[in-house]
Amino acid sequence: VNLDLQLSTLKRGVVDLHTEPDLRQRLQRGKPLRIKAGFDPTRPDLHLGHTVLMRKMRDFQDLGHEVVFVVGDFTAMIGDPSGRNLTRPKVSAEEVRAAAQTYAEQAYKVLDREKTKLVYNSEWLNQLNFSKVIELAGRYTLARMMEREDFKTRYANHASISLHELLYPLAQAYDSVHLACDVELGGSDQLFNLLVGREIMREYGLPPQIVMTTPLLEGINARVENGVLVGDKMSKSLDNYVGVDEPATEQFGKLMSICDDLMWRYYELLSRGDDDAWKEKRQRCLSGGMNPRDAKIELAMEIVAQFHDEAAARQAREAWESQFSARHAPQNMTQWEHQGEVALMIALSRSGAVSSSSEARRRLEAGAVRVDGERVTDVHHKLAPRAEPYEIKAGKRDWVRVIVRAP
Amino acid sequence: VNLDLQLSTLKRGVVDLHTEPDLRQRLQRGKPLRIKAGFDPTRPDLHLGHTVLMRKMRDFQDLGHEVVFVVGDFTAMIGDPSGRNLTRPKVSAEEVRAAAQTYAEQAYKVLDREKTKLVYNSEWLNQLNFSKVIELAGRYTLARMMEREDFKTRYANHASISLHELLYPLAQAYDSVHLACDVELGGSDQLFNLLVGREIMREYGLPPQIVMTTPLLEGINARVENGVLVGDKMSKSLDNYVGVDEPATEQFGKLMSICDDLMWRYYELLSRGDDDAWKEKRQRCLSGGMNPRDAKIELAMEIVAQFHDEAAARQAREAWESQFSARHAPQNMTQWEHQGEVALMIALSRSGAVSSSSEARRRLEAGAVRVDGERVTDVHHKLAPRAEPYEIKAGKRDWVRVIVRAP
Repeated sequence: VNLDLQLSTLKRGVVDLHTEPDLRQRLQRGKPLRIKAGFDPTRPDLHLGHTVLMRKMRDFQDLGHEVVFVVGDFTAMIGDPSGRNLTRPKVSAEEVRAAAQTYAEQAYKVLDREKTKLVYNSEWLNQLNFSKVIELAGRYTLARMMEREDFKTRYANHASISLHELLYPLAQAYDSVHLACDVELGGSDQLFNLLVGREIMREYGLPPQIVMTTPLLEGINARVENGVLVGDKMSKSLDNYVGVDEPATEQFGKLMSICDDLMWRYYELLSRGDDDAWKEKRQRCLSGGMNPRDAKIELAMEIVAQFHDEAAARQAREAWESQFSARHAPQNMTQWEHQGEVALMIALSRSGAVSSSSEARRRLEAGAVRVDGERVTDVHHKLAPRAEPYEIKAGKRDWVRVIVRAP
Repeated sequence: VNLDLQLSTLKRGVVDLHTEPDLRQRLQRGKPLRIKAGFDPTRPDLHLGHTVLMRKMRDFQDLGHEVVFVVGDFTAMIGDPSGRNLTRPKVSAEEVRAAAQTYAEQAYKVLDREKTKLVYNSEWLNQLNFSKVIELAGRYTLARMMEREDFKTRYANHASISLHELLYPLAQAYDSVHLACDVELGGSDQLFNLLVGREIMREYGLPPQIVMTTPLLEGINARVENGVLVGDKMSKSLDNYVGVDEPATEQFGKLMSICDDLMWRYYELLSRGDDDAWKEKRQRCLSGGMNPRDAKIELAMEIVAQFHDEAAARQAREAWESQFSARHAPQNMTQWEHQGEVALMIALSRSGAVSSSSEARRRLEAGAVRVDGERVTDVHHKLAPRAEPYEIKAGKRDWVRVIVRAP
């Protein structure tokens, strides 16, 4: 593959690259590079955020390079030594292996299984005795370690830093020494640790690894504020994620809910093919030659197919479309306004959505009424004043938009 | 042994004691305590400074306690990781063992060989793998470690602190955990490390060790300035030491050269018997009932006998006395004063030490003249102005004290 093309594919979406001349030079040798990326096996459920990095690993694989998937079981088995319960490992070796296997199976939905070397860092880190640890620690200074943003801040704020925390970046760096890797990939929040690896390799007389970081993916609820995409990074605890193992219809629906700007971000970080493909698509949407909803459907199809298959993606699309037409309001619909709280039954009849209040009661009891897509059967249901209109469906085709103002 | 008597013997000459109530309580149990002291085997030549600590260990032994002599071979074998030559150990295991044996043989001149347990900390520290090291490091915070004076100063001054340096106090602390010792002894410059041991033992659920430190002994050239004893600590590089392995006459001569205040310091820290014995002796010297020189001879005899034997001590004394009378000035002698630098030959003749300047020249050339005990044969030798008088011997019995004032 042409060197410039390789470089442009590999650099796509990357936050940090230390350094581009190094990468170019290493690629020029014409030998496959060894790419390392580490994962914490104690959080086995992958979501799209994790796959940004895996997408980059896959880019390397597709270009013929060797990917080493390092399961960080060593630290997982130690548990968190900052807690009080130190004498027993947090999880057993078997549990870690099982979790890592689950993790890897999910990862293979993005990675090429045949071209992925799965290793556990306990294999070599457990072999390090105290002498070797001291030797390793002797290669790095406290001052350099304290350049890490969180250490610096905590130290300045007199927040506790346990001494073992200073050893973790060294352990990760030693992985690079052991593997003699050419490139280490990680999330942009891992930059410091990755650069420690680069320096420690030099100390051990190895060519220093090239460091590349991928962005932290925004969650599906990110929105544009003042022209800028704003949102927390995708995480399970914030419930703004698309899980790799979720059902196809669930994934599809979540992806269809994202705003347009986020869609282009996801295109950049999660879709395959070169940059030009999605940029051209964006251009067509901006110029009115393509409906953004169709672009979103194509993105959702690609991602769902990656985690399931083409057929599942098609089914998910069909399910979403029928649900959409069932649940979502047409662009133009009757609008009715009311001042102060109002009973749903009254709103239905007065707005003209149904012919009478007895008809409204009948439809409610029959389960034919949805408010904002949610079925309502309670005939005493009230609509409280609020800023946004209620979108109410009173039957197969009967829609009304109700605005309830404060009294 | 009576508890209060034990306590007073053990506390004699001690700088730090953490804590006295703990020590009292531990002694009250009536079981022998386990006393730990660590030594660096890479400096195998012991001098009197080292024996202060051993003297304290011996006190414990004499009271029936168990002394564990920890050879710090673990760190010695690692070498200094702050240097660049890291890949090879500084010294081999065999070399360390040999040095440790030499060290121990010298130590047994103070310690009771039969009651001393000699152990090498590599036995257990080499067994610590990375997980255990992380567990250990997780028990201590960076902030606490940075309370150590030298770390604090170096960090503040942007001087380099290598990360492995933070691990050494933890290694020493782990020795205490492994040995489950009751007391750790060390030089007063070791206080911080010893206290880390105390805390780490608590973290591992063990009764925290009692920490006792002994003073750093002043070298033989310490002098009184403004009523205070001032001098560097004894060290080989400053050439102000009395070596444990030096010949008896050498030791005796060096000890006889110390000033009176230093003599009482040495009595306190190096002699056996209770405090009252030497304090009474000091009282007699101060009241004129005893010549301080005789007290010094008794001290030198005791110390030399400890490192050699009684007979060797007697011989050293005799040799010193005959040399002394040959080299040292009588108490009363002629005194001659001169303002400004003066030639030795002039001083000899004018002071009346010799009959003429040609006689002075003859004696100088014959090697019969000593200035402050040092032979002078140069006929052009000059005496510069100085505060103390010169003690000049011009022949077998011809002494003169020459005071040369500034012009």
